[in-house]
Amino acid sequence: MGGDGAPAMVVNGADLARARFPQALFLFFGDAARIRPLLDRLPRLAEVSSVHHTDQVVAAADKPSAALRAGRGSSMRLAIDAVRDGAAAGVVSAGNTGALMAMAKFVLKTMPGIDRPAIASFFPTMRSESVMLDLGANVVCDADNLVQFAVMGEVFARTVLGVLRPTIGLLNVGAEDLKGHEAVREAAAILRSTTLPGVFHGFVEGDDIAKGTVDVVVTDGFTGNVAVKAIEGTAKLYAEFLRHAFKSSLLSRLGYLLARPALNTLRVRTDPRRYNGAIFLGLNGIAVKSHGGTDAFGFSNAIGVTIDMIRHGATDKIKEDFARLTARPPSGAQAASV
Amino acid sequence: MGGDGAPAMVVNGADLARARFPQALFLFFGDAARIRPLLDRLPRLAEVSSVHHTDQVVAAADKPSAALRAGRGSSMRLAIDAVRDGAAAGVVSAGNTGALMAMAKFVLKTMPGIDRPAIASFFPTMRSESVMLDLGANVVCDADNLVQFAVMGEVFARTVLGVLRPTIGLLNVGAEDLKGHEAVREAAAILRSTTLPGVFHGFVEGDDIAKGTVDVVVTDGFTGNVAVKAIEGTAKLYAEFLRHAFKSSLLSRLGYLLARPALNTLRVRTDPRRYNGAIFLGLNGIAVKSHGGTDAFGFSNAIGVTIDMIRHGATDKIKEDFARLTARPPSGAQAASV
Repeated sequence: MGGDGAPAMVVNGADLARARFPQALFLFFGDAARIRPLLDRLPRLAEVSSVHHTDQVVAAADKPSAALRAGRGSSMRLAIDAVRDGAAAGVVSAGNTGALMAMAKFVLKTMPGIDRPAIASFFPTMRSESVMLDLGANVVCDADNLVQFAVMGEVFARTVLGVLRPTIGLLNVGAEDLKGHEAVREAAAILRSTTLPGVFHGFVEGDDIAKGTVDVVVTDGFTGNVAVKAIEGTAKLYAEFLRHAFKSSLLSRLGYLLARPALNTLRVRTDPRRYNGAIFLGLNGIAVKSHGGTDAFGFSNAIGVTIDMIRHGATDKIKEDFARLTARPPSGAQAASV
Repeated sequence: MGGDGAPAMVVNGADLARARFPQALFLFFGDAARIRPLLDRLPRLAEVSSVHHTDQVVAAADKPSAALRAGRGSSMRLAIDAVRDGAAAGVVSAGNTGALMAMAKFVLKTMPGIDRPAIASFFPTMRSESVMLDLGANVVCDADNLVQFAVMGEVFARTVLGVLRPTIGLLNVGAEDLKGHEAVREAAAILRSTTLPGVFHGFVEGDDIAKGTVDVVVTDGFTGNVAVKAIEGTAKLYAEFLRHAFKSSLLSRLGYLLARPALNTLRVRTDPRRYNGAIFLGLNGIAVKSHGGTDAFGFSNAIGVTIDMIRHGATDKIKEDFARLTARPPSGAQAASV
């Protein structure tokens, strides 16, 4: 029921995902009177779907704490409960981000070894694709949080992006050891002294995000949220400037027509709908947040990310990595003072 | 002597600035044996220039503290000393940012009422142009720092960008009052209860930077530095993707040729050299940092920003605003707890 175009956008997105993932089964939580007619028009989807009625919804403006208290019968909550109960292997929602995170944390619980879950997403770079986290779940982070994000992000890059030995960078204001605040400097010292399945590259800067210098960009939720939105805003600004340039004269319009196939490839490559689906990492279960303003194609990609996470057993892999890390003596703090 | 193409880039940049600002006089600090031959080829610039020889330079890799201790006779230091002594109305350098900030702070001193100077820069937006600060001088900031940045940024928008009543936004992870960490929430409370020459808009998010939602975007130096570099990186990524698209087929190459005049307008509009020149605000004197990798055109724009600041008496305006603010009872802390 969440997102600007729900529930039609969600049902149509599921139908696109069904075509890509023929083995998937879909559980729809929400107003059956609105969902069933949509499914009636999509018989192949209806065959692999079930509808779980509730007339309670979490509104976009609801505070997370209020949603948690009052939303026990809401479509969002029931969908998360289904993951906890094993009825669903993952949950996707285009609804209220804060409420989804609060409920997912409360119901699914945080994994052993992880203090706080993080929001991760992937995006196009000069090299290929990278993942960045945290994108807003944790406004203030200490060194341990950042180290945990690094491990979770690395598993994401391996399982979803298919990178064999992901490189990990800590977002900072400079590449030198002395740069940045205490949390990033301490996190770097811990990561340098820890054997991870990936490779710790060191500090990276804001421009390294688009360059694709590393596969995993680790940062606190404040910086990550600002950076990812700044990037989105800049991409839109350039698209707008470009549109304006092509419209500015008859010749440039003609030029656009000739270059259109190539420009369409560019548009596809940078289409934000392709990168829709922010993953909540660090929970005992898979929860993915879709952009509220996306369409069916974008929502189908958020479902795709969810299915990727499920198929590759991302949750178990994160658990294994943390079990391995925490089995060792806590070398981090000592290494930091070397 | 600072920057990749120095000293030729600096001298040639000064010559471009001379054409735009015929009343300007130029003082060059550095290796006279390298600077004089460059000036000899530019007689009109030579007429309005003087060369102040020193063979000491601050290197790009020097630590700010070391530069401060050992660099008393360096070209950077002598140029800043000239501002303190009234021989120059402002200083521009393409050298080591940290050293320039440390020396400028030490020599020019921070203005009364300001705890820490900030680095500010302006950039193109969907609406026109905006200024953002701090871009890296202060990695950790409290509410008072952010409030001071707001006042300084507002003066910059009035004097350099020519906005009559600038709007000010605090960068945050959401627009609601409860979002963000303590420093931004407290700064918002103070700004809401303070009468500024500008208008406090409230919180803005990362995508508001490119949208141009406000004229002045205020943030801490960590977030600001990451955001501005993330934006630069994204702009380069899109330019690269676009170049690739136009080269991909014969038709798209032809399309490019037809649209070239319009695309050149776009390139000019988004040319980072046009926005070169980061201003150190909050000092008793004008100091501007040029990108080290820029060319003569970029450097001339950093000189242009310096001259704009001088002509509009930006330093005095900031002082006046702070005198007015601090003359009042400190209402900030009380307002924050309302």
